[in-house]
Amino acid sequence: MSDSAQPMRKECAPPVSAQRADRSGDEAAARQGCLWLMPNTLDLGLLPAEGPAPDLRQVLPQQALEVAAGLTHWVVENARSARALLKRVATLQPLAQPLQAQVIRELPRPRKGGERTAAALDARDWLAPALAGQDIGLMSEAGLPAVADPGAALVEAAHGLGLRVRPLSGPSSLMLALAASGLNGQSFTFVGYLPTDTQARAQRIRALEVASRQAGQTQLLIETPYRNSAMLAALLQTLQPATRLCVASGLTTAVEQIHTAEVARWRRGGAGLPTQLASDVPAVFLFLAR
Amino acid sequence: MSDSAQPMRKECAPPVSAQRADRSGDEAAARQGCLWLMPNTLDLGLLPAEGPAPDLRQVLPQQALEVAAGLTHWVVENARSARALLKRVATLQPLAQPLQAQVIRELPRPRKGGERTAAALDARDWLAPALAGQDIGLMSEAGLPAVADPGAALVEAAHGLGLRVRPLSGPSSLMLALAASGLNGQSFTFVGYLPTDTQARAQRIRALEVASRQAGQTQLLIETPYRNSAMLAALLQTLQPATRLCVASGLTTAVEQIHTAEVARWRRGGAGLPTQLASDVPAVFLFLAR
Repeated sequence: MSDSAQPMRKECAPPVSAQRADRSGDEAAARQGCLWLMPNTLDLGLLPAEGPAPDLRQVLPQQALEVAAGLTHWVVENARSARALLKRVATLQPLAQPLQAQVIRELPRPRKGGERTAAALDARDWLAPALAGQDIGLMSEAGLPAVADPGAALVEAAHGLGLRVRPLSGPSSLMLALAASGLNGQSFTFVGYLPTDTQARAQRIRALEVASRQAGQTQLLIETPYRNSAMLAALLQTLQPATRLCVASGLTTAVEQIHTAEVARWRRGGAGLPTQLASDVPAVFLFLAR
Repeated sequence: MSDSAQPMRKECAPPVSAQRADRSGDEAAARQGCLWLMPNTLDLGLLPAEGPAPDLRQVLPQQALEVAAGLTHWVVENARSARALLKRVATLQPLAQPLQAQVIRELPRPRKGGERTAAALDARDWLAPALAGQDIGLMSEAGLPAVADPGAALVEAAHGLGLRVRPLSGPSSLMLALAASGLNGQSFTFVGYLPTDTQARAQRIRALEVASRQAGQTQLLIETPYRNSAMLAALLQTLQPATRLCVASGLTTAVEQIHTAEVARWRRGGAGLPTQLASDVPAVFLFLAR
């Protein structure tokens, strides 16, 4: 790797528009910290029991490692997994402060089914370090924060308080799955989790398939890993034979599998198409009706 | 940076399921190359006129640089921008073959409005190097290939031919915008481009706003940069005052700007909210109705 590259950590300057704006808060804004959106890996629960964890540089850019190493204040989905990531960062990039000295706050748990957290979150409290000039990192257990994960309310609050929000590039299981599916990437919908009740789930799948056909829109959904096989069975039972189905699991990890075929083909089996999915490997399900 | 990290380039082995499958094509599959989905930066058209381009490691993980440097066969949206990226890769990672010796094929141009390319693409021809054992890289002009970009037909064809598809982590302007918007990341739709006719566009915006309200779903759309200001004006004119609107432009670049506020707030102006957008900076527009 070349040593001639420029240093990558940028100052959290106020956005250009704020610099130009003729408002009185300019100097205060310039002293505020910003909210960095720190990507996480997609290997939660998939690390080898022994030996070193996979190199973070497989999925995270150097800038994310440098920013993470420089932060001392965090708001996270899960403190334990956040510390685990920072330990891996520390093997590549010295931390500005030892892990024990970092301020790591956990977001309140969302209710089952993906409800947004923290409508009632006291933003001035959670974002106090940034208001006082310290950068804050937002991190979820896997992938990009606030995408299929909690944290959006905090980001919205940051905008409301005039803080700069700075997303860092990293792996998104939804977009990696979409790109690798070969299904329509020009029009797509992510619907989160489906109902777990069998009848309600089948009904929802049928409604999504109709919407997919009408709009030519790829439908993306996720499931709790231990229900992955049940979800695959439900999709194969409910979708039309000509609908194309993709299952992408363990993305970016050693157990990555990505399969796309028509439902009729999945039903016949063989050709490397799985009939069961691992109950501990996160999967994204995608389909596109004809 | 530690030297103790494991080498990151993985062999393009057939997926685990294919290894297990009792079908006759196993040995042939093991000799096939795979289709790597190579992410690009988001700074197309935004590079400084003089001086070095920004360090690729700001947005691309080391694995993507290593894989890109090792490939010799490419299918790309635009050959010129693909060569430009490979030149930047070469400053960090020696290329397996000089640029002039690389085989770089351009995808047929999509028709205006985001129609999928290459329904009639001769997959066996385009994927011939992989069928003969050479890895191929698929790359678009910005971000992840086949997401809001051409290439999906090629990816689908690769699945149909039993080739392994391997997505590499990289920046997705849609997901960075979604994460940084603070809008709902648990349910969202990307609709691509809207009609350019004023009436048709307003009608479509209203329909999307109704859908957003009914499903609590963030709507994402893009526009050709020179029409960005017209799109912002149309959104501000058409959306309800309580709808939250985010404009995220120049993501990951020096001119990055991300603003989220209610439409009523945007209409009042000030608070750093832009009234015009640069006509040469890619933007993502997002909104969530109440």
